[in-house]
Amino acid sequence: MTADEPLVIDALQASKPSRERFLEWRQGSVGCVHVTLAIWQNARETLSVIGDWNRLFAANADLVALATSAADIEAVHASGRTAVVFGFQNTSPLEDDIDLIEIFHSLGVRIIQLTYNVQNNVASGCWEDDDHGISQFYGRNVIREMNAVGMLIDISHCGEKTGFDAVELSERPIAITHGNPAAFVGADIELKRRNKSTDLLKAVTEAGGVIGLSMYPKIMRGGSNATLDDFCDMVEWTAERIGIDGVALGTDFYTGYPVEIVTWWRAGRWARESPLSAPSEFSPWPDWFQSPADLPGVIDALRRRGFSEADVRKVAGGNWLRLFGDSFGPMSP
Amino acid sequence: MTADEPLVIDALQASKPSRERFLEWRQGSVGCVHVTLAIWQNARETLSVIGDWNRLFAANADLVALATSAADIEAVHASGRTAVVFGFQNTSPLEDDIDLIEIFHSLGVRIIQLTYNVQNNVASGCWEDDDHGISQFYGRNVIREMNAVGMLIDISHCGEKTGFDAVELSERPIAITHGNPAAFVGADIELKRRNKSTDLLKAVTEAGGVIGLSMYPKIMRGGSNATLDDFCDMVEWTAERIGIDGVALGTDFYTGYPVEIVTWWRAGRWARESPLSAPSEFSPWPDWFQSPADLPGVIDALRRRGFSEADVRKVAGGNWLRLFGDSFGPMSP
Repeated sequence: MTADEPLVIDALQASKPSRERFLEWRQGSVGCVHVTLAIWQNARETLSVIGDWNRLFAANADLVALATSAADIEAVHASGRTAVVFGFQNTSPLEDDIDLIEIFHSLGVRIIQLTYNVQNNVASGCWEDDDHGISQFYGRNVIREMNAVGMLIDISHCGEKTGFDAVELSERPIAITHGNPAAFVGADIELKRRNKSTDLLKAVTEAGGVIGLSMYPKIMRGGSNATLDDFCDMVEWTAERIGIDGVALGTDFYTGYPVEIVTWWRAGRWARESPLSAPSEFSPWPDWFQSPADLPGVIDALRRRGFSEADVRKVAGGNWLRLFGDSFGPMSP
Repeated sequence: MTADEPLVIDALQASKPSRERFLEWRQGSVGCVHVTLAIWQNARETLSVIGDWNRLFAANADLVALATSAADIEAVHASGRTAVVFGFQNTSPLEDDIDLIEIFHSLGVRIIQLTYNVQNNVASGCWEDDDHGISQFYGRNVIREMNAVGMLIDISHCGEKTGFDAVELSERPIAITHGNPAAFVGADIELKRRNKSTDLLKAVTEAGGVIGLSMYPKIMRGGSNATLDDFCDMVEWTAERIGIDGVALGTDFYTGYPVEIVTWWRAGRWARESPLSAPSEFSPWPDWFQSPADLPGVIDALRRRGFSEADVRKVAGGNWLRLFGDSFGPMSP
């Protein structure tokens, strides 16, 4: 790492955590990664996941450290290590209890996605043919409480109406930590409606939010054959429509799990098989992004594409750092 | 009890269970009561509630016994005791896991209400201004699994669309264990939309289902001042519209809890105060129904109203016995 390297923040990875992954982060000079603690886990199970992470932090203090604020992220990055931000991809750990938002905040969690693909008691997911938005009672209370304690709202796997509801109901900016513009990617993706409409992207970013663009093959134009140029095209396309301040990285990278985990992510325990027709298989990552160790190549490609150094720094991590700084503390009175 | 007394089944009570309550049941010659194990409880908490009941069964074997079939109900009734049917007023104990439906069935649970007042991951509640029905993924799987193992679907606190969805999606008859016809009661009740439209009552009963009519003041015309004649009017009014085979009793009687429990029922832990403007107070029960010990007077009033003895027996318990007999075992192939 040299002093003038940009801070790189990847706003979502869901790999099985291990020293091997942390070494990849260091190899790629990744300053900060938002990791996923929970998909369908309940409160108790999530406590054990945090316990696992605490063991990993102790055993790998030379490579990683927990960050709960933008200042933490900068300090960990400056120490030559990778800052880890805790997040959930579902509200299942809350178990219908708004008090658990503050409790998980105390344990370091800073980002919660309102629902994962399907309807829950808070919101509707992107798979539902009819997205009903954020629920009138529990859902609205969750938004209010997340705003109050400083828990960033993530709508990545939510449906469109839920996304617009979140922008409207939240008094603070919200995030799409990992997703792509549907109009750029096209309709031929496997995970129905995971990508976002341009109108929703505009609404999120006009309210101060950020989208993390992903090279995850199942939501990327070209899939596993997408080129680095395609990815740069997407960054450019998005920045032209919503402004550079809303565009950032959210790779959705995952590895290290057996393939059964994909079925579990998709079906939880609420179905006996995946409701998607798309196969529950790992899609090969493109050759230019085999792991986060390849992120410097992505940053360099953006430079070659002609983005100014200031804009490259925004996309690489500056926009997330700004949003995280605005989001992770209690709401000002 | 004499041999020709009708079997009385009360399809919902939510009192704090105790010997005092069981003595009231015997005083009222109540043959069977569907009791509530869970409102917002999760799986683990519900196991403890079942544990509490098992202790009560052991300590009060002279008065009560668990029933898991229509035959059990008849046998316990014939022994001069009251049969207890286990049920949930919410799917919260399932914790998003359809396998828990069979597990709770193995533990004796036979009736599950899809949601309690508000939206959950399965369905929409009667408080939601916009009822979205049964959810496309988890909700439909829950219905399928309940049908398969023999868990009776209850829509008492669900919204109208959820009710119609349940009739349509369920391959077996469903229940409104405790509720009243909205058209009879009128709109001036405190618990918005708890009562059911006549069309929904017809759909439920045409599919073989049953509604348990209630003298609970907050959902009854006249409230605490409703007379026994008013209740008989409601039975008559309902039977005229949906047929006598769909009409039964579901008192919604509860007592024995501190008043705070009403706020907890209403708000769970998903809100810090009740979202209802109606006060969280116990409403006094009408003088002719101070407890289930007064049910014989209700039965007698139906006789005096001119219902035939056969019809009185249907309303008193025969209709529930038929539906429970049709519902509590695995689905025939």
